[in-house]
Amino acid sequence: MTKALSTPILIYDTTLRDGSQREGLSLSIQDKLCIAHKLDQLGVPFIEGGWPGANPKDIEFFWQVGKNPLQQAQLVPFCSTRRPFSQAINEPMLEPILAAGTTWVTIFGKSWDLHVTEGIKTSLDENLSMIGDTIEYLRSQGKRVIYDAEHWFDGYKQNPDYALQTIKTAAQCGAEWLVLCDTNGGTFPQEVSQVVTIVSKSISDWSSNAHIGIHTHNDGEMAVANAITAVMAGATMVQGTINGYGERCGNANLCSLIPNLQLKLGYNCIGENLLSQLTPTSRFVSEVVNLAPDDHAPYVGRSAFAHKGGIHVSAVERNSLTYEHIQPEQVGNLRRIVISEQAGVSNVLAKAKTLGIELDKHDPKTKEILRRIKELESEGYQFEAAEASFVLLMYEVLGLKQQFFEVQGFRVHCDLAEGKNITNSLATIKVGMGGENILEVAEGNGPVAALDAALRKALLNFYPQIGEFELTDYKVRILNGNVGTSAKTRALVESGNGQARWTTVGVSTNILEASYQAVVAGLEYGLLIHFPFRKTYPKLYNSRRS
Amino acid sequence: MTKALSTPILIYDTTLRDGSQREGLSLSIQDKLCIAHKLDQLGVPFIEGGWPGANPKDIEFFWQVGKNPLQQAQLVPFCSTRRPFSQAINEPMLEPILAAGTTWVTIFGKSWDLHVTEGIKTSLDENLSMIGDTIEYLRSQGKRVIYDAEHWFDGYKQNPDYALQTIKTAAQCGAEWLVLCDTNGGTFPQEVSQVVTIVSKSISDWSSNAHIGIHTHNDGEMAVANAITAVMAGATMVQGTINGYGERCGNANLCSLIPNLQLKLGYNCIGENLLSQLTPTSRFVSEVVNLAPDDHAPYVGRSAFAHKGGIHVSAVERNSLTYEHIQPEQVGNLRRIVISEQAGVSNVLAKAKTLGIELDKHDPKTKEILRRIKELESEGYQFEAAEASFVLLMYEVLGLKQQFFEVQGFRVHCDLAEGKNITNSLATIKVGMGGENILEVAEGNGPVAALDAALRKALLNFYPQIGEFELTDYKVRILNGNVGTSAKTRALVESGNGQARWTTVGVSTNILEASYQAVVAGLEYGLLIHFPFRKTYPKLYNSRRS
Repeated sequence: MTKALSTPILIYDTTLRDGSQREGLSLSIQDKLCIAHKLDQLGVPFIEGGWPGANPKDIEFFWQVGKNPLQQAQLVPFCSTRRPFSQAINEPMLEPILAAGTTWVTIFGKSWDLHVTEGIKTSLDENLSMIGDTIEYLRSQGKRVIYDAEHWFDGYKQNPDYALQTIKTAAQCGAEWLVLCDTNGGTFPQEVSQVVTIVSKSISDWSSNAHIGIHTHNDGEMAVANAITAVMAGATMVQGTINGYGERCGNANLCSLIPNLQLKLGYNCIGENLLSQLTPTSRFVSEVVNLAPDDHAPYVGRSAFAHKGGIHVSAVERNSLTYEHIQPEQVGNLRRIVISEQAGVSNVLAKAKTLGIELDKHDPKTKEILRRIKELESEGYQFEAAEASFVLLMYEVLGLKQQFFEVQGFRVHCDLAEGKNITNSLATIKVGMGGENILEVAEGNGPVAALDAALRKALLNFYPQIGEFELTDYKVRILNGNVGTSAKTRALVESGNGQARWTTVGVSTNILEASYQAVVAGLEYGLLIHFPFRKTYPKLYNSRRS
Repeated sequence: MTKALSTPILIYDTTLRDGSQREGLSLSIQDKLCIAHKLDQLGVPFIEGGWPGANPKDIEFFWQVGKNPLQQAQLVPFCSTRRPFSQAINEPMLEPILAAGTTWVTIFGKSWDLHVTEGIKTSLDENLSMIGDTIEYLRSQGKRVIYDAEHWFDGYKQNPDYALQTIKTAAQCGAEWLVLCDTNGGTFPQEVSQVVTIVSKSISDWSSNAHIGIHTHNDGEMAVANAITAVMAGATMVQGTINGYGERCGNANLCSLIPNLQLKLGYNCIGENLLSQLTPTSRFVSEVVNLAPDDHAPYVGRSAFAHKGGIHVSAVERNSLTYEHIQPEQVGNLRRIVISEQAGVSNVLAKAKTLGIELDKHDPKTKEILRRIKELESEGYQFEAAEASFVLLMYEVLGLKQQFFEVQGFRVHCDLAEGKNITNSLATIKVGMGGENILEVAEGNGPVAALDAALRKALLNFYPQIGEFELTDYKVRILNGNVGTSAKTRALVESGNGQARWTTVGVSTNILEASYQAVVAGLEYGLLIHFPFRKTYPKLYNSRRS
């Protein structure tokens, strides 16, 4: 495909406003500040910060940003056009927008006749006045205006003349951007292409200073394709959110849009040197909003450049374009060699290399690692989702694994009194530390929680770092379904320490033992990060509690 | 957009083959059988079952399907073309494909010159022979052939003449479908449109009996848009997976593609009456593979039609198209009104009806069922994949539920002695039967097994039918990942009695209690099948063992 000649496309991020409409996502002022600064560093030129006045949090946010201003990006407040049959100058809603002290403001208005007559119950003419009056007033107050045409594509389909009148009014009254919104997210690229082309042809008749923007939603899984199509038809601003967060099925995902535009189509969005910040930015935002990152997200997902089979792996190492559409480093991601049932020696070598260990193909230890993996996988272990367990296994075979502690045994006791809904779980654990045996007991609201608590209690005085570890995810599944509750179970435990996350695996016919194996391996791996070369048992860091 | 005049588009599902390449997804034979039958019920005409011979599991799967054949769908095995410089008739790889006993087979071959010379290290001519010879041999054995042209779009971009020669060879040698694959997932709709149009124009010169298929991946977040674009340019088969599962960023998502094609563009895919099975199918598959469903997935996600109240809600209720691109019921999903909680009566009515119970919309009991479901779902219960629990709940509200037994309480005790790898689990349980209390104890190789054994031991003398029940699958998932092992867990238990299978659900912060709830409900439902109208506690069937 021919690359565009570095046409600049302005990215308009609305993670902090439309993104926060996602069910289950809520942002504190501090979260919003962190994200705004991160987006600024990514080189995003416009950041929609919220709707000051719709809630007190957003007024406070704009005020707080003033204390530590963004370096490059324009922060933009968002608001509706004035209400019917009033005047913009008397519209209280617009006061906090002006008070936000920004250069730009975004105003949204109705494009779809049905929404005017049924939704806000006014006349089609009055809606045009609302758009025009609001924009003119904001212009008179020195603001530059972006106009979001809500439901534009649906409106155009029902009443094209009226939809066109709304944006024509906005342009003639001084809006510099006419952003065509697919609010319900059901439009198709072919429609977007047709309609944006029509607007492209008319816009210079309306104003010498107005440009087209695009704002899409993902209800038909077309948000990214629609935005790209709009750009190819003449739009020069693209609105979207990091990780595609947004109401219902989300907004256009900037983490896919930016590399699609820049790497594939040759448009100029954020500067080539900044593109490698895309994956870290995506993960940073998902951490701040406390949502698990989507491992399978295009470009930035953990699995986006993961390879499984043997032939596959050797081909990728010879010429990465044989099985990758771009090089992962371009967007700050990593190629990953997945260890699985189909693994060959080349996978093990490649995987060890990514972990900083050079293995020799002919070294018997390499073959031993592979043999152990295959043996454990036939027992039901799975390393593709448990890289930390793979590292521990590799270290063990190579003689590099440290014995941080030794669990001698455990007991778990659970009681349930029906009706009272009281479950007590009590775990006792015996841990060896050098010559010493530590016996600990703890309660939990389930047997695994009790076991985890007892183990941490036993270890915390030796390894205070464990205080920072947290267990972030825990999954269990049965392996051979047809022998019922006696079947083997596999537990996957994800742990974190604030900076890194790692996953470990355990397998047993006893769900508690499988969980315990994974929990123990999770602690071991976490300690390995802190003490890569420790060879001896530690002394007590604190004196033990009495 | 003009709707196509009901052109049939053949859906080819590859969840069981390409979908299982997703990192972290692994399928047992039982899982594959369940999914194949569910897809058959959805009306999907082609189901790719796996690569028999690449692993013993897939040979076994095709054999097992033969024992309980699909009703409508064609099950298709997948295999490579023969190796260089041999003959298809002598190719051992093709034997298990023929032995699978299907009408159709899918063969994939190389389209990209680079992959021929660098990957399989043979000549461009020999690759054409491999394609032709393999297809002709399979045709001679009575098979109908689908040809997957791997890396077709990338190959075409590098060497269009050669790429065209590969599919021309396939068509001339008898392949009925030429499936153009965007294997690396980086192609754009505009390119797909151009290239498919070119193939469309040539195909009738090659064969009177060949048609175009499309197989896309999501590395540029374009898989669905690319597949749709290909259809609009002449493709009449679409390959994809349920929930878009697949390697790296996944395959084209059939849960978006099918409604996009059928509801938006008017193509005929699975029959309008089956479209409402889409959401249940999506959730069923995600439960079987034990991956959390994507709440924000287009069409089938839990949040796909969620509205937040106020004007939005009343507008939606007056005219749903104001804020929804389709009606959720069309794809078996629900509108969710986050505040008012009024949604779903129709869903309960519809679901009850499928289970043979006619409820009245205005009956307070119907509202009570809905209230209980919403309450339980907010606690983490899920009834999509646990219909037996839904039936028990409905029977309870309708006053039809029988008290077969009453668990008064249980205790579980587990010991692990490290190194010796001996785990003993001991469960005691107290069950009330009318006035009598039965106290039983049993061992198991895990706490859930011990609990299950104790419960069965207590009940078997009252309900000898329980001897036929078996627990066929058992899955556990954490619900709120960020509180570690203390998080809520959901257990799904599948039970069977030789004729029927049913699934029940339990939720608790204690994994044992969640499992116990599901196990108990599984026994209750099984007894319900035997004693639909029993109202009293049974007498002993056998005298108790001493």
